[in-house]
Parts: sequence; C-alpha cells; structure tokens
Amino acid sequence: MSVTNEIPDIVIGRLPIYLRALTRMAEDGEKITTSSHELGEQLGISSAQIRKDLSHFGEFGKQGTGYHIIYLIDQLRQILNLDQTWPVLLVGAGNIGRALANYSGFRPHGFSINWIFDRDASKVGQVINGLIVQEMDELKRLIMREKVRVAILAIPVSAAQETADLLIEYGIKAILSYAPINLTVPEEIQVRYSDPVIELQRMTFYLE
Amino acid sequence: MSVTNEIPDIVIGRLPIYLRALTRMAEDGEKITTSSHELGEQLGISSAQIRKDLSHFGEFGKQGTGYHIIYLIDQLRQILNLDQTWPVLLVGAGNIGRALANYSGFRPHGFSINWIFDRDASKVGQVINGLIVQEMDELKRLIMREKVRVAILAIPVSAAQETADLLIEYGIKAILSYAPINLTVPEEIQVRYSDPVIELQRMTFYLE
Repeated sequence: MSVTNEIPDIVIGRLPIYLRALTRMAEDGEKITTSSHELGEQLGISSAQIRKDLSHFGEFGKQGTGYHIIYLIDQLRQILNLDQTWPVLLVGAGNIGRALANYSGFRPHGFSINWIFDRDASKVGQVINGLIVQEMDELKRLIMREKVRVAILAIPVSAAQETADLLIEYGIKAILSYAPINLTVPEEIQVRYSDPVIELQRMTFYLE
Repeated sequence: MSVTNEIPDIVIGRLPIYLRALTRMAEDGEKITTSSHELGEQLGISSAQIRKDLSHFGEFGKQGTGYHIIYLIDQLRQILNLDQTWPVLLVGAGNIGRALANYSGFRPHGFSINWIFDRDASKVGQVINGLIVQEMDELKRLIMREKVRVAILAIPVSAAQETADLLIEYGIKAILSYAPINLTVPEEIQVRYSDPVIELQRMTFYLE
C-alpha cells in the first residue's frame, strides 16, 4: 500500500485490537454484522475514532447496516500482512521463553514460533513444545536460509542489545523484546516491548 | 496531586520508560547528571518531548547542567506512587503465571507478587517461588483483609471477564491482564494488557 507512510503509528496500533474483537465476535457466531458503536462500546474507544481509523484504508461499512464482520476481519488481516503465517524465531529458553513457546495463541493469529535459541549450553538440546533449543552459532545460517524476519527476545538485559544487533545484522526486521531495556536499532527496524513493570507503574500513578 | 487529571495518559505512560532508563544510568554509575538530549537519544524520543512531559510535574533540571539522575529518579518514583512496594495478587498459575511469579524484576521496581490463585484444583497447593497457590474461594477475604489494590490476570479468555468482575467487586483498582480479550470495567478502574500477538501484528503491518 503506498498510503501507509502517512498513517500514524497509533492508528496502526489499534488495528490489531479491532481485529481481535471482531475475531471474537466471529467465533461467537451470533451476528453477521457489527457497528462502530458496538465495537467501540466493547473496546472503550469512541465510535468516531474507529470510523476515522478505518477510513484511512477504505470504505468498509455502510451507513445503517454497519460492518460485515468476516469481511472486515479479512480486510484487516490483509492490511496487517496477516494473510500468511509469519515464522518467528525465539531467543531465550528461560521462564518467559518457555511460556511463549508453549502459548497456543500465536498460530491462529498469524505467527508460529518455529525456532528457539539460547546461549546457555545447558539449555541447548532441550525440547520445548516440540522444538529443540539451538545454539547461538546457528543463528546466522538459520535466519539467512529461512529468511526469518520476526524475532522474540526473552533474554536478560545484559545480552539484549548485543543479541538484537546480531539479529538485525542477519536480517530480522521486527523484534518483540521482553528484556526491560530500550534497544537502539536502525530506523527501519520495528521494535515493540513487553514489560509488566512498565504497565504496572503506569497504573499506580492513578492509585492513592 | 491535584493537577493529575489534566495530564494526558500518554504522558503518564512515558514516565516509567524515563524511570527505567534513568535507573539503568544510575546502576551504571558513570555519571551524576543527564540531559533530555541524552535520554532522548537512548529512548528514540525527542528531547523536546521529554522536557515537555516532565514540565507537567515541575522543574527538574537546569539549563546547561541537565537533570540530576538520582534526584529525577526519586521525583518520578514519587509521581508514580512508587515510594512504596505494591503487593500484587496473581490469578493464574499456568505457564505465564509461573513465569511472572518467578520474575525477579518486580521487587526492585515497586511491586511484589505476594499471592497466587488458580481455579484449577490440581494447581491449588502447589508452591511457586515460595508462594502456595490458593483456591478462588479465598479471594474475597484476602483482598479485603490485605487491602490489595493491584492484580495480574494470567488466565484463559473464557474466565477473564468474570474474574475481573470479582476482583473489582472485592476492591482491586488496577489490573494487568495477559488474557487476549478486552475487559469491560468501570471508568475508575485501571486496566493494561500484555498480548504478544497484538504487538507482533502491529509490526507486520510495516513488513513486506
């Protein structure tokens, strides 16, 4: 899509949330259509915001009849490049890494953890959810051969930047990091973070 | 603080990120002061944005000399109500719950998981990182007696809303949820989500 550069990242960030809610509606199977009002009520987002967000990408609903759920899911999946399953490389076979490797929620939503690496020799060779933990020496060859673009980092802070640098050098374009540190990466590389402390601290501001 | 209602939530959301970077600097122990420029470079946020965010809360730096790191950490901790350790209740002793219960990063940053509950009778009585998994029947009494305000939900979608409703009824004010569903809660309740699928989908938008 040639228009994508102009769409604010915060709008992009809401699309997966719309997709998740719509997918839930489709699974419930109770209705064929929904409205920006109904979606907004469920998500705590104004219906005007939802209509505005979606209007960046085209006309998806009709005044009066609303959005066809399956159609909108399909459109959102295309917009987010989810009309394929992205193979994901996981670095880190500790507690978080194991929980992620065992998580069944990736595959139905466009992702599959296909490889696990760890720099700890005692973890190499272990089998987690059917995957053998591999040693870091194999990282380069694997990323290049399999053209892997997406990685998850579940490693300590001390190794995070160095490992991210390697992943990017070998061809990774998007990193989801569980290490509680900001990574310095080239502008064209996507990075997102998952840090429970950051989320909790953001809430305690509002508590007495 | 009486001014807090006027400060945009997105600003509040950046404060923990500043705090994390400053804490890292303090641990490195290389410098006494930093600047909005230096902080911004590290975080990929403009220095003007950082100065503007902080100016909501007072004058923390001097033109030319920058911010005193320890002082700013102390101020941010006060603003975020982190000059205490928040006891946290965890519901869910599955893979994610276990990883969280074993995570050592909470305590240094203002939180301590003190209780674990699970509705699965086969998990009740198990010991995870020194905590005994308790049955849900005890939830109400515990939250009320200990005046717990913060909870983490690491349970399946099917039980998430119902459990959140109970927690809120018993007195919980802030919930970090790992269940991939939007929770409907009263306006005064804080909710944040951790969902790796949402983060990954947000990035694949930018990939070819």
